[in-house]
Amino acid sequence: MKSRIRRIFSHIDNGVDVIVFANATEPHVDISFLYATGFTDGLFEGCAAFCHPDGRAEVVTSALEEETARKGGLPLHVFHSRQEREKFLRAQLRGHRRIGLNFAEVTHGVAKDLAKLAKGAKFVDVSEAVQMARLVKDEGEVASIRTAAKIASRAFEEVLPEIRPGRRESEVAAELVYRMQRNGASGASFRTIVGSGPNSAEPHYTAGPRKIRKGDFIVIDFGARYRQYCSDVTRTVVVGRATEKQKDIYETVRRAQTAAMRTMRPRVKGKSVDAAARAVIDGSPYKGRFIHSLGHSLGLAVHDGGGLNPMSDLVLKKNMVFTNEPGIYLSGFGGVRIEDDVLITGSGARNLSTAPRDLMEL
Amino acid sequence: MKSRIRRIFSHIDNGVDVIVFANATEPHVDISFLYATGFTDGLFEGCAAFCHPDGRAEVVTSALEEETARKGGLPLHVFHSRQEREKFLRAQLRGHRRIGLNFAEVTHGVAKDLAKLAKGAKFVDVSEAVQMARLVKDEGEVASIRTAAKIASRAFEEVLPEIRPGRRESEVAAELVYRMQRNGASGASFRTIVGSGPNSAEPHYTAGPRKIRKGDFIVIDFGARYRQYCSDVTRTVVVGRATEKQKDIYETVRRAQTAAMRTMRPRVKGKSVDAAARAVIDGSPYKGRFIHSLGHSLGLAVHDGGGLNPMSDLVLKKNMVFTNEPGIYLSGFGGVRIEDDVLITGSGARNLSTAPRDLMEL
Repeated sequence: MKSRIRRIFSHIDNGVDVIVFANATEPHVDISFLYATGFTDGLFEGCAAFCHPDGRAEVVTSALEEETARKGGLPLHVFHSRQEREKFLRAQLRGHRRIGLNFAEVTHGVAKDLAKLAKGAKFVDVSEAVQMARLVKDEGEVASIRTAAKIASRAFEEVLPEIRPGRRESEVAAELVYRMQRNGASGASFRTIVGSGPNSAEPHYTAGPRKIRKGDFIVIDFGARYRQYCSDVTRTVVVGRATEKQKDIYETVRRAQTAAMRTMRPRVKGKSVDAAARAVIDGSPYKGRFIHSLGHSLGLAVHDGGGLNPMSDLVLKKNMVFTNEPGIYLSGFGGVRIEDDVLITGSGARNLSTAPRDLMEL
Repeated sequence: MKSRIRRIFSHIDNGVDVIVFANATEPHVDISFLYATGFTDGLFEGCAAFCHPDGRAEVVTSALEEETARKGGLPLHVFHSRQEREKFLRAQLRGHRRIGLNFAEVTHGVAKDLAKLAKGAKFVDVSEAVQMARLVKDEGEVASIRTAAKIASRAFEEVLPEIRPGRRESEVAAELVYRMQRNGASGASFRTIVGSGPNSAEPHYTAGPRKIRKGDFIVIDFGARYRQYCSDVTRTVVVGRATEKQKDIYETVRRAQTAAMRTMRPRVKGKSVDAAARAVIDGSPYKGRFIHSLGHSLGLAVHDGGGLNPMSDLVLKKNMVFTNEPGIYLSGFGGVRIEDDVLITGSGARNLSTAPRDLMEL
């Protein structure tokens, strides 16, 4: 993972001697710890990685994670007690005057503890550099996200026969997660959304006991985790025949998604991509009903920094991966969202998720 | 959730005007935000709860979570932009001189941002008070954990026929998660462990492609999430007939667990409970092979503060919930762990998890 660490340092211009990624207790683990070490397994609570400008990394790990950490091939300092942990952390911090810390993911408590262990040193926020590095994926990362997207896409197709009147939203969610895990995912990358009927109008609804009814719009938002990397896909289906209004809403979202996709290429700004989709919806009878951002970067986290939204000055680069997920939400009636995972290529963009995008009447 | 907030304040003796639970981006969300608000759904990225000594709470929420937040019945301040968010946060912070912050779960970045919005105010770490409050569960919390434990226990019994030679560890894990979700869980509370044969000797192994073989020890560590609360259960089985050595290891762990259970009651210290189990194992041929703590508090998080370990001065109280999970690990040979979720009662303790504890030869 030397190249990743060097990439982070290349985005730092104010001179940092060492970068520390330090974890608290789950779920308060700095995901960049995994990025820098390349570990694809383990919890690593209370552990830390020390990263140097030449790409070297050393890991202070608990005995509980030792076997898992050994697989990574990095120099390890294995602690068996709180005292030993402090001793190793202090030794790693010693002699450094400007220490980089990922303010976005380290807890305030851990940051304060580190400051005590390195008195006189200055702690510098490197979260922007970390984000910049993580935005552009290397080959291994792209391969993992592609697999995660394929696993999710395939699971969706497998689960289609289960989406029928009388089935509960929560049952469909369970089937989807099951099939993703059977297809090789280590788990769902986030809590699966199956919003049927009026629930489909709530973008962050999850899944409840409601039984699917004929005529429902059903928004299904799901993702697989594979080797720590996430996919994030949404499909909206109609159970039974779609009405003209349903078709119209769906096609509007579909056109918005296509319009955004056409703009996605290196050197374009995030806000331009968002604007392309938003123009389609705001030029339709559903003006103002696209109530969230168009997309977000995808990687080790589902919301992996940088986004496609009306304020975004982020400049797209080759090997970035974003979701492209316009939606229309009509309270009380229902909603539509179509979401794909998109890899920026040298000259344009490519969908990594493969589930069919045409309106399905199940 | 007024009583919860008042409970947190009751553990603070250095005068705090208001407590802020402030979230960054998933997974860096302060779980105590859910504790204080009682929200059982939603992501609440970038949102914050302001809690007052009289138990009142106000929530600054993004528009995306508005519908979900409305169900909680708390006063809301709904922001539609970063500027609006800052305005609301500033207004809530205004006039307070000592502001409580949960250092253990807030990111360093969010803490720094809040400090800028409340210049001159002192931010005080209230994470110990938060942990003390969260350790003792109220009726609703116990009910949720009990349901989560039942869901997991039932799923384990349902999945037994799937644990047979030739099945992959990852397939068993998928079945288990599926059945938990079908039984009412919103998902797994952590990544399911199915460690077979030599993998069973690695406490934090997860689940891989290895196929189960006759004679294997299989450590299965799993948990359900229900209304945001976690269960965490482990069973170890043998596929085929157990050898005398396997039976001996299993029975030693079983006796250690029973010994710990007998000591669990109000006013006992965490280290005494750990010692009871450790004495059994260290008095056996497997001395020194119990390489982790006996247990941890369970609640909104799987590792929910306070633990049962050799250093723990935590005093057990009625309505605390802990895991009781001794284990023996023999590198290359295999391991055994038996884990139950235990509620401390007025006079003793009660297992909330119900899956059978006798050695199963499948």
